[in-house]
Amino acid sequence: MATIGDICVSASINLLSALAFLLAFGILRLQPFNDRVYFPKWYLKGIRGSPTGSNAVKKFVNLDFATYIRFLNWMPAALHIQEPELIDHAGLDSTVYIRIYLLGVKIFAPITLLAFMVLVPVNWFGKTLEAPGAKDLTFSSIDKISISNIPFGSDRFWAHIVMSYVFSSWTCYSLYKEYGIIAEMRLRFLAAERRRPDQFTVLVRNVPTDPDESVSEHIEHFFCVNHPDHYLMHQVVYNANKLASIAAKKKKLINWHVYYQNKYERNPSKRPTIRTGFLGFLGNKVDAIDHYTAIIDNLSKQVTQERENIINNPTAVIPAAFVSFKTRWAAAVCAQTQQTSNPTIWLTEWAPEPRDVFWENLAIPYFDLNMRRLLMTVSLFFLTFCFMIPIALVQSLANIEAIEKVLPFLKPIIEKSSIKSVIQGFLPGLALKIFLIMLPKILMTMSKMEGFTSLSGLDRRSASKYYLFVLVNVFLGSVITGTAFQQLQQFISQPSTEFTKTVGSTIPMKATFFITYIMIDGWAGIAAEILRLSPLITFHMKNTFLVKTEQDRQNAMDPGSLEFATSEPRIQLYFMLGHVYAPVTPFLLPFIVVFFAFAYMIFRHQIINVYAQQYESGGAFWPDVHGRVVMGLIISQILLMGLLTTRGTDKSTLVLIAQPILTFWFHRYCKGRFESAFVKFPLEEAMVKDTLERAVEPNLNLRIYLQDAYVHPVFKGDDFEKPAIIDDEEGNPLIQTTRASRQDSRPESDSETGSC
Amino acid sequence: MATIGDICVSASINLLSALAFLLAFGILRLQPFNDRVYFPKWYLKGIRGSPTGSNAVKKFVNLDFATYIRFLNWMPAALHIQEPELIDHAGLDSTVYIRIYLLGVKIFAPITLLAFMVLVPVNWFGKTLEAPGAKDLTFSSIDKISISNIPFGSDRFWAHIVMSYVFSSWTCYSLYKEYGIIAEMRLRFLAAERRRPDQFTVLVRNVPTDPDESVSEHIEHFFCVNHPDHYLMHQVVYNANKLASIAAKKKKLINWHVYYQNKYERNPSKRPTIRTGFLGFLGNKVDAIDHYTAIIDNLSKQVTQERENIINNPTAVIPAAFVSFKTRWAAAVCAQTQQTSNPTIWLTEWAPEPRDVFWENLAIPYFDLNMRRLLMTVSLFFLTFCFMIPIALVQSLANIEAIEKVLPFLKPIIEKSSIKSVIQGFLPGLALKIFLIMLPKILMTMSKMEGFTSLSGLDRRSASKYYLFVLVNVFLGSVITGTAFQQLQQFISQPSTEFTKTVGSTIPMKATFFITYIMIDGWAGIAAEILRLSPLITFHMKNTFLVKTEQDRQNAMDPGSLEFATSEPRIQLYFMLGHVYAPVTPFLLPFIVVFFAFAYMIFRHQIINVYAQQYESGGAFWPDVHGRVVMGLIISQILLMGLLTTRGTDKSTLVLIAQPILTFWFHRYCKGRFESAFVKFPLEEAMVKDTLERAVEPNLNLRIYLQDAYVHPVFKGDDFEKPAIIDDEEGNPLIQTTRASRQDSRPESDSETGSC
Repeated sequence: MATIGDICVSASINLLSALAFLLAFGILRLQPFNDRVYFPKWYLKGIRGSPTGSNAVKKFVNLDFATYIRFLNWMPAALHIQEPELIDHAGLDSTVYIRIYLLGVKIFAPITLLAFMVLVPVNWFGKTLEAPGAKDLTFSSIDKISISNIPFGSDRFWAHIVMSYVFSSWTCYSLYKEYGIIAEMRLRFLAAERRRPDQFTVLVRNVPTDPDESVSEHIEHFFCVNHPDHYLMHQVVYNANKLASIAAKKKKLINWHVYYQNKYERNPSKRPTIRTGFLGFLGNKVDAIDHYTAIIDNLSKQVTQERENIINNPTAVIPAAFVSFKTRWAAAVCAQTQQTSNPTIWLTEWAPEPRDVFWENLAIPYFDLNMRRLLMTVSLFFLTFCFMIPIALVQSLANIEAIEKVLPFLKPIIEKSSIKSVIQGFLPGLALKIFLIMLPKILMTMSKMEGFTSLSGLDRRSASKYYLFVLVNVFLGSVITGTAFQQLQQFISQPSTEFTKTVGSTIPMKATFFITYIMIDGWAGIAAEILRLSPLITFHMKNTFLVKTEQDRQNAMDPGSLEFATSEPRIQLYFMLGHVYAPVTPFLLPFIVVFFAFAYMIFRHQIINVYAQQYESGGAFWPDVHGRVVMGLIISQILLMGLLTTRGTDKSTLVLIAQPILTFWFHRYCKGRFESAFVKFPLEEAMVKDTLERAVEPNLNLRIYLQDAYVHPVFKGDDFEKPAIIDDEEGNPLIQTTRASRQDSRPESDSETGSC
Repeated sequence: MATIGDICVSASINLLSALAFLLAFGILRLQPFNDRVYFPKWYLKGIRGSPTGSNAVKKFVNLDFATYIRFLNWMPAALHIQEPELIDHAGLDSTVYIRIYLLGVKIFAPITLLAFMVLVPVNWFGKTLEAPGAKDLTFSSIDKISISNIPFGSDRFWAHIVMSYVFSSWTCYSLYKEYGIIAEMRLRFLAAERRRPDQFTVLVRNVPTDPDESVSEHIEHFFCVNHPDHYLMHQVVYNANKLASIAAKKKKLINWHVYYQNKYERNPSKRPTIRTGFLGFLGNKVDAIDHYTAIIDNLSKQVTQERENIINNPTAVIPAAFVSFKTRWAAAVCAQTQQTSNPTIWLTEWAPEPRDVFWENLAIPYFDLNMRRLLMTVSLFFLTFCFMIPIALVQSLANIEAIEKVLPFLKPIIEKSSIKSVIQGFLPGLALKIFLIMLPKILMTMSKMEGFTSLSGLDRRSASKYYLFVLVNVFLGSVITGTAFQQLQQFISQPSTEFTKTVGSTIPMKATFFITYIMIDGWAGIAAEILRLSPLITFHMKNTFLVKTEQDRQNAMDPGSLEFATSEPRIQLYFMLGHVYAPVTPFLLPFIVVFFAFAYMIFRHQIINVYAQQYESGGAFWPDVHGRVVMGLIISQILLMGLLTTRGTDKSTLVLIAQPILTFWFHRYCKGRFESAFVKFPLEEAMVKDTLERAVEPNLNLRIYLQDAYVHPVFKGDDFEKPAIIDDEEGNPLIQTTRASRQDSRPESDSETGSC
């Protein structure tokens, strides 16, 4: 096991790298030529323009050295903005998202205090590890303040049992309060929202075929009959997947075209050439610009033709549509009710906002959906449990003794204490991290195959898959495999369902590993996030080769977004670690609190200055977040039971049985109390908004307003991949707060305003 | 273990008792003076009247001996009626209920055939039990055709694995088809229904208090604002629990009053007297008739006063109401949507039909409901698991060897082979049966405390509680405790989670016990049901002492009803036994098929001639039935895995893992496909009915129609406990089918028509 010394080495490595990232960020963000990497949100909102000063150097490098001294001054700036302004500026999704970190601080700061005040003294004076009979055991100072230091069957375990109840109660209290606040925020957000197409619109799927009518006519007749006073119009959905792929191809080729044109302009003496064969290595040499112009023209023709094809071909209409109503009330009614006695046809649900629609999945029949769910569930199972094999392999290799056994010639190098510390402190966490990076794409593809119709739904679904993965592979995998090579024989001879006990009793031993993991993934990893190394490189590459106009430069920016699907499950891991170790090894808690506080600050800065969310779901993910925190809590409670039963406290452990039951009941109660605010659409609120609107704008022509709201983006022109930009933010006072320390900010250029 | 001989003894006992019951029924039902016991439904419907012939003897005893010869002729009569007529006559609930038995036949008849064709030969030639090394094992012929006869690790187990898949597939197919048929029947039934108050009405609960308005005003304003075009009226609910209890007391006293009046009329020479003290044994002697007249008058005054109290006192109005709308469409909308952003207030649900309302539970606040659910869940857990102790005790006593040990002086008696057979074949099943009789009342009380608002809901809830009980105590309890005394030591040394294997491996040994159980509970028990011994006695008691008028005689009838809460879970036990033993001991299957077929016939007769259901839910319980059959199937699949892993077929058993997963998926699919037909209210159907009604009755005054629909029955007069009687059955052609063999049928008397 790692000693305090190992942890200190690891801590200093990670702290140093975190600091290095922050320093690099502090310097890079002050350079004007990086401005679009570190403040893309302001450009997208049209508040900030490219530097156009007279001094050529000043346009690229910041020479005002006074600003470098205050390289951490983004931190107070990030915390300065009030929450209501933040919601206006970054949207509710982002604001709610960073509150997850805040919730972490709120839950674990008091728990840490309490644990250090009560459990640490109780453990310290347990004296098992220093007892004369225990001389041969290796232990570190961390173990002395952990539960391992309590003698077998001691009455001192009552302290842990009581504290476990206190911790759980505090967590539930915080969760309950937070759920209430978020629900309130969401309702206020939805109530304050301006008119939006999705408020009036319902997505209808699985429209049955009718031999006598087209899909469009059938929909119109159905809703005219069943919602006679409320039906307004509908927009059919075309199967434009082929068109979208041609358009995407064209866009890629245009990039190459621009690249060669730029090359030619910089060096007009020689026209660039390419070979037309395999990857540009074989085949005839041709003029590159002419070549790409020809192909692009050809593709443009194809696009036009395909577009006409789709519009004229009745079979291109898929059996789904966006049906709009005259009032929000009627849309709320239609979204929540069942239309016909057959629940597999005429399925209605509230329409996602237009930019949130995932167009490819609108046409899946009911039975297919069910089959896909089954297949994906089975695949997820195999994916989750087969990933464990490589992790276990790498981790066993990253073990000093194992390396020495397998590669004995490395022994002299490894035995050096500094290198030993690095290996023990760094490698296991790193191996895990690399595996985790490969996964999200697969999970997202699986979610897409399951047939969700909105991007937000896809994100939420992927997140729960990823959570399962993190739970099994990162948490359980680390706990069991790490010791599996020590305990394997014992484990096999036991029945597989002694699981809880095995895991529970292994947990204290794994504390140092998880402390290292928190420092690598939580501290250094988060600090790396703010540096945005990959977007930085990409932007400068594009800027060099592709950018000609301001518009191009705008397109070259990659603001990125909060990746809910991958980052939320990772936060959940910290919640779970905190809950699992709170009664066992309180020494781990401060690391978690620091992580939450640090991440809160970093991400607050990011959502203010960088990320551009693809959609706005109004914090619809909170029930998932809440549910997973509760699940982690229940798991920690069960593992504590498992741990204590191996410590000779069978009877007092019985007291703990009520805990998971009560927690589960708490979850059910919260679900009933708050969840509907996130999934249903109360009629009262809809009626209030309708009434207000009628009073303010009695002559509103809703039909014109909704006309093109739900048109497949591919029909809207070539710039279809650009997210719609909210354009009601001009003159936002927020800009002052971060612009104050900068000199080269400019009013937005015309081309940007035009693109909004 | 019991031998074939024991089973034969048991079978003949049970067959004889079943035959005796049937014979008794055949004779008793032909006696005119029992007519109201065995044909109460026809009286309640007003189709049949009391015999009033000239011959006094003929009025009471049937002297036409020819009819006795055909004492089983009720059987073809019961099967003669077609299903649509049956729905008209007995309601959909009853018709769907007996289809559960039919489903049992449909599932198990082919399974039995297949099992005997495939598994019995495979088992028979297994020859383990006859092998030379197995001489010391005791075994019977039943074991020779069971899975116990297959050698350890044999490839013959593949037959069982494949057959398990075949059986499961067939069961799922049958279940799917049946679910579709029932859903179809329900939809047709609802569509054909006449106008009923609940079609227009929504039950609103948890109305928030408003300081400025009364509950009634608040409700009116809320719905006028949020359903402006559709709201019609509402009926507040009064807290009439006290009034109801006074009225019930009064009704009881009236019975005594009538009793003494009758006594006096028969013997006018002496006025009856009673003592007013403890239970009529102590205190002053007073004139009974005067005494009761005085008390009843007093109570009548109290009733009047309390009634006025309630109506004038604003705090007697509970925060719940029945809100009616102008159309069915609007009621469907309101029932399915959320009204406000706070999901704990203004809860709306489709109103139960008036006679189905459980009035006492309408006023429970949201938090209380949650607390009650939690408490009842915990209580149910303890109830379920503490009941096992006495059962285990009794069963261990009912074991020959145990009795001999505890009471050695009984040894000579017990050792007689006939008595031994009786004890082994009869006692264990009987002990179980007695325990089961005590339970339903407790479970129903628990369900009432959980706060359900309709009788049908209470029945369904109690049924699921009872099912859990039957599963744990009857099934698992019998499997484990029966052998727990042989396997206890082994069981403790194993970890508790080897459960599946332990249960699985015990199952073949328990086959004879369950065969006995099926014969007692399933064969003889069902035959006893048709005899209606307890209502028979009660009726004649009442007829002698209380009846003066035709109306009294009508009231003295106790038609009873299908006790869904208790009998459905018992059917489920048979389904589970069938599934568990189909691949293990096929010999048990014919007993199950006979049970299902026999019970189907008996209950078909009963619902035609006897039972009067308290409410009509339109077969709303089917999703529960379906779910429990699937659950039993999954349990049987898991137990088979447990069994086979103990027989040296670990690898081939892996093939079985997919089975429960697929079955669960099947359940989910069926749920999505059919369940909404039972819980939701499609708008299309509502619209069709609305449109039709507008065309047929354009001048209907709905307000008058609904005025008194949802008034607490206690306000409707003294006969409030009588269920409302459907009065649209006059001239029903059905009467011919069962009346044909009878001579003394009469047109209904006036008083009965009046009571309808």
